[in-house]
Amino acid sequence: MEDRLKKQLDFSLEIDKEKNIFRQTHLSGHGRNENDAEHAWHMALMAYLLREWANEEVDIAKVMILCLIHDIVEIDAGDTYAYDEEGLKTQKAREEAAKERIFSLLPEDQKEEFTALFDEFEENETAEARYAHAMDNLQPLLLNHSNGGSDWIEHGVAASKVYRRQEKTKLGSLKLYEVTDQIIRQNIRKGSLKDA
Amino acid sequence: MEDRLKKQLDFSLEIDKEKNIFRQTHLSGHGRNENDAEHAWHMALMAYLLREWANEEVDIAKVMILCLIHDIVEIDAGDTYAYDEEGLKTQKAREEAAKERIFSLLPEDQKEEFTALFDEFEENETAEARYAHAMDNLQPLLLNHSNGGSDWIEHGVAASKVYRRQEKTKLGSLKLYEVTDQIIRQNIRKGSLKDA
Repeated sequence: MEDRLKKQLDFSLEIDKEKNIFRQTHLSGHGRNENDAEHAWHMALMAYLLREWANEEVDIAKVMILCLIHDIVEIDAGDTYAYDEEGLKTQKAREEAAKERIFSLLPEDQKEEFTALFDEFEENETAEARYAHAMDNLQPLLLNHSNGGSDWIEHGVAASKVYRRQEKTKLGSLKLYEVTDQIIRQNIRKGSLKDA
Repeated sequence: MEDRLKKQLDFSLEIDKEKNIFRQTHLSGHGRNENDAEHAWHMALMAYLLREWANEEVDIAKVMILCLIHDIVEIDAGDTYAYDEEGLKTQKAREEAAKERIFSLLPEDQKEEFTALFDEFEENETAEARYAHAMDNLQPLLLNHSNGGSDWIEHGVAASKVYRRQEKTKLGSLKLYEVTDQIIRQNIRKGSLKDA
């Protein structure tokens, strides 16, 4: 087998490990914790389904691949919960090292391509990255809301922190931000989110 | 919230159930059984990564969405193992009923769109569907091979059956079929596949 294809298949096998990285979000029906691969699948599919609500016209293939790879570095760096302040301090350094190791498995041109896609998502400056971020926020919000906000209750999360994170949703989709806002308000009323 | 968006979000939540549909394939490192959502994530990402090896030029956004939704009906119909001959007899009817129920959650135009995408994958007549099928075959083959062919050993699978299934890989990518053929031969030599 030629070297190029061998590298691509080695990478394909390596990323299987993303299925073992579990998040704080729980599946609907008060299910188990969700893993990164499932989360990325759900985001990419929702991105396609909801593309009419993006603030700007998007290249949907680009959005989908951004969604599919955005958590790959967590194979080495682990998941950092959105409201874990200590973890967030070291997240960037852990993820940079992981990015270098994992994308170096690829042929050089694809290492560059995938690194650029990963960075595009992180930098959040293109229409596609902004809309993908809206999915990254909306998908766990929907699951958590369907479970009565149990993930927020478990971590004692304050509404103000959720609102801060959800600023990114607004940049990607004003319409989906409206829904997000409704869901947050409902959860404050029910007491699942601290009104602080 | 308007009716259209409500339907889209109801569908988004419903498909979360795909994460509870487990396949016969095991994750690399002799891991647990893989679920449909993870499998679809892996296929879609591999489709993007390996697109240079498709036999024909493909619309990669189309390929990715075909990969992401191709197993959605299994939420109701369950997974049918590729070499389960009894299950295969009733698979079509079970999946048709599921398709109707699940896609009916969507707004009418998207019910039509998603049904057409699902059917396109099943009918396997477009370049995108053929290449997506190559991914549907290659992805579990890679995992299983990385585990020494343990899924084939467990089910006592004959090489001839694997070759029959992998005919579809050839239609999507001759290059990836070459790799597939090498892997099958190795597993026959090692005794993980019955030489019959």
